[in-house]
Amino acid sequence: MTSNRKQLHLNAFVMPNGHHEAAWRHPSTDPHRAATLKHYVDIARTAERGKLDSLFLADGVALWGNVRYNSHTLFEPLTLLSALAGATERIGLIATASTTYNEPYHLARKFASLDHLSGGRAGWNIVTSAGEDEARNFNRDARPSHALRYERATEFVEVAKKLWDSWADDAAVIDKASGVYADTDLIHPIDHDGPHFQVRGPLNIPRPVQGHPLLVQAGSSETGKEYAARFAEAVFTAQQTFAEGKAFYDDVKGRLANYGRSPEEIKILPGISPILGRTEAEAKEREAELNALITPAYGVRQLSTMLDHDLTPYPLDGPLPDVGTFTEGAQSRFELVTGLARRENLTIRQLIERLAGGRGHRVFAGTAAQVADQLEHWFTEGAADGFNIMPPTLPGGLEDFVDLVVPELRRRGLFRTEYTATTLRGHYGLARPVNRTTVTTVKEHAA
Amino acid sequence: MTSNRKQLHLNAFVMPNGHHEAAWRHPSTDPHRAATLKHYVDIARTAERGKLDSLFLADGVALWGNVRYNSHTLFEPLTLLSALAGATERIGLIATASTTYNEPYHLARKFASLDHLSGGRAGWNIVTSAGEDEARNFNRDARPSHALRYERATEFVEVAKKLWDSWADDAAVIDKASGVYADTDLIHPIDHDGPHFQVRGPLNIPRPVQGHPLLVQAGSSETGKEYAARFAEAVFTAQQTFAEGKAFYDDVKGRLANYGRSPEEIKILPGISPILGRTEAEAKEREAELNALITPAYGVRQLSTMLDHDLTPYPLDGPLPDVGTFTEGAQSRFELVTGLARRENLTIRQLIERLAGGRGHRVFAGTAAQVADQLEHWFTEGAADGFNIMPPTLPGGLEDFVDLVVPELRRRGLFRTEYTATTLRGHYGLARPVNRTTVTTVKEHAA
Repeated sequence: MTSNRKQLHLNAFVMPNGHHEAAWRHPSTDPHRAATLKHYVDIARTAERGKLDSLFLADGVALWGNVRYNSHTLFEPLTLLSALAGATERIGLIATASTTYNEPYHLARKFASLDHLSGGRAGWNIVTSAGEDEARNFNRDARPSHALRYERATEFVEVAKKLWDSWADDAAVIDKASGVYADTDLIHPIDHDGPHFQVRGPLNIPRPVQGHPLLVQAGSSETGKEYAARFAEAVFTAQQTFAEGKAFYDDVKGRLANYGRSPEEIKILPGISPILGRTEAEAKEREAELNALITPAYGVRQLSTMLDHDLTPYPLDGPLPDVGTFTEGAQSRFELVTGLARRENLTIRQLIERLAGGRGHRVFAGTAAQVADQLEHWFTEGAADGFNIMPPTLPGGLEDFVDLVVPELRRRGLFRTEYTATTLRGHYGLARPVNRTTVTTVKEHAA
Repeated sequence: MTSNRKQLHLNAFVMPNGHHEAAWRHPSTDPHRAATLKHYVDIARTAERGKLDSLFLADGVALWGNVRYNSHTLFEPLTLLSALAGATERIGLIATASTTYNEPYHLARKFASLDHLSGGRAGWNIVTSAGEDEARNFNRDARPSHALRYERATEFVEVAKKLWDSWADDAAVIDKASGVYADTDLIHPIDHDGPHFQVRGPLNIPRPVQGHPLLVQAGSSETGKEYAARFAEAVFTAQQTFAEGKAFYDDVKGRLANYGRSPEEIKILPGISPILGRTEAEAKEREAELNALITPAYGVRQLSTMLDHDLTPYPLDGPLPDVGTFTEGAQSRFELVTGLARRENLTIRQLIERLAGGRGHRVFAGTAAQVADQLEHWFTEGAADGFNIMPPTLPGGLEDFVDLVVPELRRRGLFRTEYTATTLRGHYGLARPVNRTTVTTVKEHAA
């Protein structure tokens, strides 16, 4: 049943009640249940039933100020995904974690642990924590500069890779007869001594099943794209139009050669929130139903955070005021949102409505065939290797996608009917990294 | 079926293959399987079948130098216990985490996340990381002093408690009709500004199901005991003799009044590794069988770590050399081990054999009735509120305990036949902490 066509990759981006900012108010969602493990187990199993590549949790290390009107996160991703590891068999598990407020030893170890627990299904979405509120939870008055955050993120990942490679793949000998548990000639300190980190190692867990967990990145600034080209194996990105998506795709893929990498070594997955109906009219109705539940005060605060600029004093039906230029926050989202407002000359209220479905990610309401058309277009015309699927409501929106769109993609020969691999790297068609620092022994056997 | 007698508490202390240092070499263990989640799921379900209070994982943040001969840890505790949360229903889940190399925001959040995921079953064993190797994985040349580590640990737990209390219990309103998700009048920044930590808060997850996760501590130095009396709700401790156990028990319980706490607010659980046989002779045989698998080189390195003194140059059959006095490592274990050697005039080899079963914890080989006698004696004579059960091998040693000793304790009316609570605090008979910083609203309802 596997098609000869190149296959696309699908990641389920999970938020408690769905991606539409009013999802939790929709009659189809149960925000009390969304605070239990059961809810996520159901979602993970639905995604696995659809043979999706992976499940992804965003994260931040501060309480979003607009919790009065919505809750985007609840569980900490590494604990939640570990809980889901035992409830699933094949699907990849991608957790967001910050390089700005963590130590590489802890994170490298936790991802290695999740990778072993899940039999090779761990992924790490690397973020640098743009929020000012996040800094204040970690002994700082202000966030480090954009440049400094990326500098630290670079060294952080280098240290993590050295730690994952501090055990050769065959270091755990486990020979009951001789009493040798591990061959310590194949386990080495890393003795990393850099400007941000001094880490001796080795790691206290064997090399991950995948060698390294899958490395994911979502920054789309110049620095972010360069970082992705150097380290990332999958990129989550917000692109509103095909033209923008295509330009981003070519841009990032074109940078890989600078790092001795081939374009296939990175998968670019734009976000899309598909609002599905049996007819186009039904889909538009569902979208309108969700938009009618928007709380403008929430949207204003959300927008203020994205633009790093307090918009609460401005009239909702007036234009977006001059918010200056990007300073030290999340640069690419700033540019996307200000660009959208300028291009379409939107009021604050209109901008809020445009962002309500996916916070800057693309929202598309239509039938399963129409959604599949969109995905196929971007995929076959070279704007995407797959998609970051952002269900507007959960669990319903994901069930709709799996039951309606996935079969349509299969009919077109674009998506797997069964898993062909057991690891997340396997699903994405990516190689297991060779251990660069600790080489496996070549054993000589006496006759 | 519940007895009127006071009930004892049982915690299963889990290591990959069991607590005897040669467990992984024993024919009954499968160290390859011990590197999979399945192994721990079986262990957790066995402990739950026995209605034990909790499951506990020790931890350190460096690779133990003696990995050539044994592996004590593998999975990182918070990820592994999260994975077990979904595979169990009632048993408490206690993870060790260091206050010296973590940030309170991260840990408070992860434990809150585990507590919500498990429906109120999280516990935190607070350690200060005595190892020199641990410091070198976190930008330091040497561990901070014993005093400084405890100073930081004190402020750390104060910050964590404030963070857990930063949401009132009823702050998550979740009112679909009005669009109010959380009552932000009931969520407050903590604005902590201390010598070690400046943390603004609030936490980005609602107050844990248990209010605070259960706080556990295992330090037995003067500072450690004082810390336990101030913060701990359960204490894991290594006590070789009843007299020592009784003295420790009275000592710690006697300190609680200084902190306005009653003696019942802390449960003291000495460790015991029960080696079981149908007859006493069979038990002794099993013990001898395990001891015959000891690798002396491992024992010497293990002992060197405990005493913070390199013993590899000394003859195995000679006396323990002068190892000086405690400096900055793990003080109470140092004193226990040097005391044992001095009291019984042991050679290095003899000392290694004495420590092989439980690294200084008590080892007792006998029938189920004899083990139950020991537990009953310590419990009824005021040297223990329960026990930290350290199976010599896993999963077999825990199965034996649950199938043989637990029924015997029940016949004596000393241990529950069914869980009577759903939370870890409930199992230990401890109250849910009142929120000290963020007070719940008193709502007035119109007629």
